[in-house]
Amino acid sequence: MTQPIYGRVALIGLGLIASSMYWAIKRGGLVTEVTGYARSPETRETARRIGLCDRVCESAQEAVKDADLVILCVPVGAMGAVARDIAPALKSGATISDVGSVKRSVIDAVSPYLPEDVHFIPAHPLAGTEHSGPESGFAELYDNRWCIIVPATEDTDPDAISQLRALWEGIGANVAEMDADHHDLVLAVTSHAPHLIAYTMVGVADDLRRVTDSEVIKYSAAGFRDFTRIAASDPTMWRDVFLNNKEATLEILGRFTEELFALQRAIRTGDGDHLFDYFTRTRAIRRGIIEAGQDTDAPDFGRGAPKP
Amino acid sequence: MTQPIYGRVALIGLGLIASSMYWAIKRGGLVTEVTGYARSPETRETARRIGLCDRVCESAQEAVKDADLVILCVPVGAMGAVARDIAPALKSGATISDVGSVKRSVIDAVSPYLPEDVHFIPAHPLAGTEHSGPESGFAELYDNRWCIIVPATEDTDPDAISQLRALWEGIGANVAEMDADHHDLVLAVTSHAPHLIAYTMVGVADDLRRVTDSEVIKYSAAGFRDFTRIAASDPTMWRDVFLNNKEATLEILGRFTEELFALQRAIRTGDGDHLFDYFTRTRAIRRGIIEAGQDTDAPDFGRGAPKP
Repeated sequence: MTQPIYGRVALIGLGLIASSMYWAIKRGGLVTEVTGYARSPETRETARRIGLCDRVCESAQEAVKDADLVILCVPVGAMGAVARDIAPALKSGATISDVGSVKRSVIDAVSPYLPEDVHFIPAHPLAGTEHSGPESGFAELYDNRWCIIVPATEDTDPDAISQLRALWEGIGANVAEMDADHHDLVLAVTSHAPHLIAYTMVGVADDLRRVTDSEVIKYSAAGFRDFTRIAASDPTMWRDVFLNNKEATLEILGRFTEELFALQRAIRTGDGDHLFDYFTRTRAIRRGIIEAGQDTDAPDFGRGAPKP
Repeated sequence: MTQPIYGRVALIGLGLIASSMYWAIKRGGLVTEVTGYARSPETRETARRIGLCDRVCESAQEAVKDADLVILCVPVGAMGAVARDIAPALKSGATISDVGSVKRSVIDAVSPYLPEDVHFIPAHPLAGTEHSGPESGFAELYDNRWCIIVPATEDTDPDAISQLRALWEGIGANVAEMDADHHDLVLAVTSHAPHLIAYTMVGVADDLRRVTDSEVIKYSAAGFRDFTRIAASDPTMWRDVFLNNKEATLEILGRFTEELFALQRAIRTGDGDHLFDYFTRTRAIRRGIIEAGQDTDAPDFGRGAPKP
């Protein structure tokens, strides 16, 4: 084993993101000891059973004791309360990070509780699946995905940032740095607005009584089923994302509605050229994503035909 | 080889749908001879090069000569013109079908041109990928997918329907029957509205100048990239779908906008309970789709990490 990047790392919250981090940390031999804590006794029990974390603790304070790095892996709305809880137990010189999908509100919620002698370096790995919970993690989740590091202040210690960057690179991710407001706007476009739209479309289908559920389900392969995967994501996590990235999400949704109305108008008036031009333009973005290595070119994501 | 279901089948239009049908027909030994025609000389040339169709003809009339089944595999907006072209060459007693995503307007466009002595039995296989053209087809496309048969009139010959049903089952599909208006409404929910929404969201991302294209592409894995796959579908085909299923699509989009506004309002007013309940409800539909064998349960469609 090469020199570990951190001696002790504490994961607070043990869902998809934390468990995938743990398996990737083990795969790479990146850390001497990983402690873990989850609020629910059932989650802690599951974690012990499947060997998730070197040591599962009965309190967050116990988990963060002597940790060189503490990563908050709880929903965005819970970050402040967890920070308040662990603050007295943090080791001097430790780095505190998180994995929340929103960065400005996490910085605002967590910063007030942290002692002066720790480094607060928020981060956001852009990876996930529609599954959640301690058993949904896997070591490859972050391979070739992006992790965005968002230092809480401009005078954050560069060495502490480099160390956190090295951990994420060891986990398999590409690392970028960004300021919090820009992060929140980019993510509103690439993630938050698309999720709300998918949730909405699935809700509409669920509501339609004339079209029975079983028909919507049977015939979902025509496009709709892709939306249902996104709309199966963790409800608590996503509630918190929208409540904490209000402004940027609402702005993008406003733009979206404007465009949607223009396309609806083109349909109503029979303006085929407008539709054709619009649909041609959007094809190019897909090509860019595949060339950037961020999705597969295999037809239909390569998922093939499901078994009868 | 068992008894073929049809002696001669003609495929008019040689894109993803027709080429996948051809390979599935060959896989199953379902037809004695398949002829093909495409308007573009390049497509006919490609078809000959890759062995798509037993015989590629230089005109649609030549392709349909003596065919027991003619399948129109052209965009919905071109169906009427093709029907007019081939009508004089159709064999008495032949079945005419199609694969269009809209059924009412295809029936209205095609019926007037057909002679009395043929059976017109429209159909719609609910399968496809984001790729298009004669080289994008593969024999497994329809395996365990649905094909909806929509007889043009109530007195359509039951034997002709059974024969077409047998072909689609031989191709690998499950077959259902439905009337045209109900089909168009169900598809507006499961396919047409989701496609327009995906096109819109990708267009919005493309427009955002403050968020550069490269950032949208780099960070697309957070949800957005799923939309780009759908929005990479064939522009001509989709233009025609929207122009020919106006009413149902606009109705579903109206419902969608209503729900979206309600969720935007919940975000603005901080109504977390409303969001949480909505996001919980939509999870159940995903489960139903997986249980119905219409999608994979593998995280992220099982596509895994793309190569760097």
